[in-house]
Amino acid sequence: MKINQNFLNLQGSYLFSTVGAKCATYRAEHPDREVIKLSIGDVTRPLAPIVVDAMKRAADEMADAATFKGYGPDATCYGYEQLIGSIRAHYARRGVVLASDEIFISDGAKSDLSNILDLFSADNTVLVPDPVYPVYVDTNIMAGRRILYADANRENDFLPLPDPEVHADIIYICSPNNPTGAAYQREGLKAWVDYALREDALILYDAAYEAFLEGDLPHSIFEIEGARDCAVEVCSYSKTAGFTGVRCGYTVIPSTLKREGVSIGKLWARRQSTKFNGVSYITQMGAAAVFTEEGERQIRENIAYYKRNAQTIGRMLDAHGIYYTGGKHSPYIWMQCPAGMKSWEFFDLLLENANVVGTPGSGFGKNGEGFFRLTAFATAENTEKACARMGDYIKTL
Amino acid sequence: MKINQNFLNLQGSYLFSTVGAKCATYRAEHPDREVIKLSIGDVTRPLAPIVVDAMKRAADEMADAATFKGYGPDATCYGYEQLIGSIRAHYARRGVVLASDEIFISDGAKSDLSNILDLFSADNTVLVPDPVYPVYVDTNIMAGRRILYADANRENDFLPLPDPEVHADIIYICSPNNPTGAAYQREGLKAWVDYALREDALILYDAAYEAFLEGDLPHSIFEIEGARDCAVEVCSYSKTAGFTGVRCGYTVIPSTLKREGVSIGKLWARRQSTKFNGVSYITQMGAAAVFTEEGERQIRENIAYYKRNAQTIGRMLDAHGIYYTGGKHSPYIWMQCPAGMKSWEFFDLLLENANVVGTPGSGFGKNGEGFFRLTAFATAENTEKACARMGDYIKTL
Repeated sequence: MKINQNFLNLQGSYLFSTVGAKCATYRAEHPDREVIKLSIGDVTRPLAPIVVDAMKRAADEMADAATFKGYGPDATCYGYEQLIGSIRAHYARRGVVLASDEIFISDGAKSDLSNILDLFSADNTVLVPDPVYPVYVDTNIMAGRRILYADANRENDFLPLPDPEVHADIIYICSPNNPTGAAYQREGLKAWVDYALREDALILYDAAYEAFLEGDLPHSIFEIEGARDCAVEVCSYSKTAGFTGVRCGYTVIPSTLKREGVSIGKLWARRQSTKFNGVSYITQMGAAAVFTEEGERQIRENIAYYKRNAQTIGRMLDAHGIYYTGGKHSPYIWMQCPAGMKSWEFFDLLLENANVVGTPGSGFGKNGEGFFRLTAFATAENTEKACARMGDYIKTL
Repeated sequence: MKINQNFLNLQGSYLFSTVGAKCATYRAEHPDREVIKLSIGDVTRPLAPIVVDAMKRAADEMADAATFKGYGPDATCYGYEQLIGSIRAHYARRGVVLASDEIFISDGAKSDLSNILDLFSADNTVLVPDPVYPVYVDTNIMAGRRILYADANRENDFLPLPDPEVHADIIYICSPNNPTGAAYQREGLKAWVDYALREDALILYDAAYEAFLEGDLPHSIFEIEGARDCAVEVCSYSKTAGFTGVRCGYTVIPSTLKREGVSIGKLWARRQSTKFNGVSYITQMGAAAVFTEEGERQIRENIAYYKRNAQTIGRMLDAHGIYYTGGKHSPYIWMQCPAGMKSWEFFDLLLENANVVGTPGSGFGKNGEGFFRLTAFATAENTEKACARMGDYIKTL
């Protein structure tokens, strides 16, 4: 029996474990100091009441033979009509018309972004931004694909545009971005769609943070002309509605999207019906409540809470003239390390002098060196306290 | 962009869609007749009250910031201690001692059986029984692996043993079997373990129906000496506790299991933490209730209900001297078609003459020709009615 040799090419996932270990060591050595983590990538606000009520009602249905639900409906790859209908309505509010069989329900964006690679040849070349969410890279290393990087940096506001000299087959775009929080305008996405169409490439569009967007920035790649012929969009309730511990996402594959004459949606339906059995009925009913009128009102409260935290962090950085992206359209703030420091140097000094933990940007790729990621997911109280301490420390530099 | 050409080698999944279409046509042409489906592969009994209560309590926890849960615990690949502890206790009751980090929680056996193939080279040769659960075949076709078949037939009671002349790298064993309901004794499993150790092969053991076993038949491959060095076991709450619509399963990978010096459990942890984000906290709390003392009592009631249906079917077949396997240790009854009929011939005549629907055995592989699968998942009332009609029809042959 031979193992998949590509797994041996994976780098150790040192970033978050090193952050955790350094933090634990510091706490053990200084039990009297209160360390605040602005490195959290997980939500902390509770689920909206309308979601919890819907899940409890669904659980009750499962207790009665007359209303019990087994496997989900075949015709829509296990997605219930209530949920698919509410996602269609969510898109329709932004002028994007989707058919029911263009929406596939899953247990989350990470699963879909990873599993959809099953459909594509290992010979394809992949283009990811740098800095990058490590999952895009590791999942392609596991399959042995060649990976190219599009540089994201201060010069392009961390929003790289396509290089006409470079050919790619599979293109990852995450907007608003993790880790940088930068969000594309319509023109930027149009440039990527035009490039993908020209190269016969496919865009995997990660919209996990779309609920944080403000103004008229595009929430969906399908707001861009031509995208129905070159893009798949993956989204999630994790950050939209606090579902990191509930697990529900969805992938949109236009019926018009084909490669080599084969419908990508039909390939995905075949992959999913073979390797997956759908999402809990209880979870689906909770998710269906998110995009109701009352649901949208309730989840906006949580997002507004996180945004106030982001503003707190932004005000502190502005006060010290520090460059950053994100915060406005995203729960992530991507700041330049002060005084020309490197990422891990700032990490260590910030922990020591302000007892605040963030994530070193260099862990996300070479263009992340000298940058630092903070998140808006802590409590308001801790965010304010952490910012006051950070400001006091930065003043001394 | 090139698609994965292996997908083009998949056969259409005609079996269940043809069964469904023929059934729908018959109903449309004979609206006055009551058609009963004994082809159902899905559970129909409601969830145990203790499971529903646990899920509702967990939903309430998610509504409060103080008890809210985001991503599951890292250390155990997102599985909560309550659930992992209850699975360890379940195994311990059969004398199988597992460490916490040998148990991986997922959204179901189908996902795990499919996704674990990521860890293995496409060059491996796969051995599946025939007749076979189609997922074992299709997932390997998607990866381009060579597939060999072990003949299961009346001569070996549908329980094939290894052929020492044949080399295989990955071996699928499902006991009690889907579709035949046949279950291995200890000796049969020992023969497979010895063969796997000799061939440096890996057994993927599908224990999804273990809760239906009676007497002292092995419930787990890890009851067999040597299995910790050659087997992975995949199990599910779907048929054990009616979780087909709730989605929870678990995979056991012994820490001793290595190939090419690499720990299979560590590879799986890397695959899962990269491509998966765990199972709903609410679902996990429901599943944790299953293997409590009261939970075991409640789920046994549902299993006893299905077993009474299986006995009803078995008595009818016995009365007419028809050969079958399954029923005793399984919700599936695998019967020989009467009067030397072929599978689809019997399907058509049974639908026409008894208004009963089953699944043609030929859809599961060449050795299924001339056989027919019935399931015990209908209501007791419908099962009795269907058996009376089947008996009346078979008498006329």
